[in-house]
Amino acid sequence: MTETTGYSGGGFVHVKNPHLDSMEEDILYHLDLGTKTHNLPAMFGDIKFVCVGGSPNRMRAFAQFMQRELGLAGAGEELPDICAGSDRYAMYRAGPVLSISHGMGIPSISIMLHELIKLLHHAKCRDVTIIRIGTSGGLGIEAGSVVITDTAVDSSFQPRFEQVVLGDVVVRSTELDKDLAEELLACSREIADFPTLIGHTMCTYDFYEGQGRLDGALCSFSSEKKLEYLRRAYDAGVRNIEMESTAFAALCGLCGLKAAVVCVALLDRLQGDQIRASHEVLWEYQQRPQRLIAAFIRQRLGLGPAGRSQH
Amino acid sequence: MTETTGYSGGGFVHVKNPHLDSMEEDILYHLDLGTKTHNLPAMFGDIKFVCVGGSPNRMRAFAQFMQRELGLAGAGEELPDICAGSDRYAMYRAGPVLSISHGMGIPSISIMLHELIKLLHHAKCRDVTIIRIGTSGGLGIEAGSVVITDTAVDSSFQPRFEQVVLGDVVVRSTELDKDLAEELLACSREIADFPTLIGHTMCTYDFYEGQGRLDGALCSFSSEKKLEYLRRAYDAGVRNIEMESTAFAALCGLCGLKAAVVCVALLDRLQGDQIRASHEVLWEYQQRPQRLIAAFIRQRLGLGPAGRSQH
Repeated sequence: MTETTGYSGGGFVHVKNPHLDSMEEDILYHLDLGTKTHNLPAMFGDIKFVCVGGSPNRMRAFAQFMQRELGLAGAGEELPDICAGSDRYAMYRAGPVLSISHGMGIPSISIMLHELIKLLHHAKCRDVTIIRIGTSGGLGIEAGSVVITDTAVDSSFQPRFEQVVLGDVVVRSTELDKDLAEELLACSREIADFPTLIGHTMCTYDFYEGQGRLDGALCSFSSEKKLEYLRRAYDAGVRNIEMESTAFAALCGLCGLKAAVVCVALLDRLQGDQIRASHEVLWEYQQRPQRLIAAFIRQRLGLGPAGRSQH
Repeated sequence: MTETTGYSGGGFVHVKNPHLDSMEEDILYHLDLGTKTHNLPAMFGDIKFVCVGGSPNRMRAFAQFMQRELGLAGAGEELPDICAGSDRYAMYRAGPVLSISHGMGIPSISIMLHELIKLLHHAKCRDVTIIRIGTSGGLGIEAGSVVITDTAVDSSFQPRFEQVVLGDVVVRSTELDKDLAEELLACSREIADFPTLIGHTMCTYDFYEGQGRLDGALCSFSSEKKLEYLRRAYDAGVRNIEMESTAFAALCGLCGLKAAVVCVALLDRLQGDQIRASHEVLWEYQQRPQRLIAAFIRQRLGLGPAGRSQH
């Protein structure tokens, strides 16, 4: 069974669940928000950009960065965590930008996306662009390179996401918005101090055995078999590997959200498995997707090219 | 391909990776620990119990609770997060008890377990018992009931975990330690104020469609189909549903760790999908597995029955 990508009439987010209308209240449990306890249209109705990433600290830093980049009042002050009542996810806003953490892996990002998409629906948000800004392992690219995903693929290099529904497998498309990817690539040309490219992103359910690492608690394969697998991935067009993109692409696509995935490579997996760079180097790498997305949002808002770099 | 459960010689944790011995340094990246930067045997060599759960706040509260239950010096003081340099997981210790968060879903717990198992190996820990204390949806049981898992099953009710290794599927056993489950059930008889039972636990990759919820952003099935699926699960022996147990059972089993899963049910899924209880009620529910495990650890350490309840 294959489903098609959703169409969002009038720019609204498209929830595909006939049961939602008949619910008197919707509790977004893992976000600690709800339709009766919170005025979601007032809190979120003007959101135009949603940025998501694994780490809560990084997504707080991104919101603070956007406060400064957009010249918003209160820049430099501590931003409140909108989901403070739950420690499952963290959520911050800076003007029209919402910044949310999703933890690691497909199940964790799926829970967040289901509740986020319902939030955007209840809040009557329109024309929302959603971007995952993450970290990844690179494949045949320099550490610190930023990859804009054209297609998210699974561990067999196929552009599909398999979702179990009541015990049966449903296959979903993992297409992302091609125009948005090109727009982001054009933005990257303004930023000279790191390489940015477009490529396929492989999404796995596991960081160690699933990504062919030799340094997990279990490893039953040789270094040769590992490299043979990674080279096959490279030949199929894969330029980086992470753990959320297929589910992200599938869910956002079905709900009519224009979506992109922009991840920095923390290492080149053809060169090794362990992440050995210093905290300082890794921190600077993680700012790269943030700087690119800040330039993109400034451009979309007509604020001209990005000013200073993040500090 | 099926693998067999590991045997741990001399009570040591059994890593099954011939490459580890030849590594000069092992960086446990997501824990922000390493063999060169930290004296792991000195920090962790005397650990006998490892308790893991999804929420970082809950796992800190559990470590503080164990400080009091074990009558340790410094009880009541704030415990330091051993993984403070990373916001992926949180780790606390109270005497011989290590308390670690694992986030939500199989990929997230897998990363933590690979690094934890290597940590226990590097630290030369012996005779370690590992217990997941979590939250779950109940199936035909009262909200607040505690389920000790005898067998973790997948969404087809099968006792197996499918791990992708270099693009191929490897099937692993999800057996848990039967004697440990019985010992925990015996401990529960001391605690009269909530029901505890042994049953199968179903583990899914998704909270909404994967668990048959009608309240996600997407839902393509009827209430009747949902209940038909959940009743089939009940008839197969499933008493609760969560998102980590199969991977936890498989990885711990292969590495020779005696493992148990003890989860409280936050609701009965045959009655509904949304988690509607108040924060106070949910907080008290979440203490129930903690109180059971505290009684178990006190008994193992010869400290006699548990004194007061957690406050």
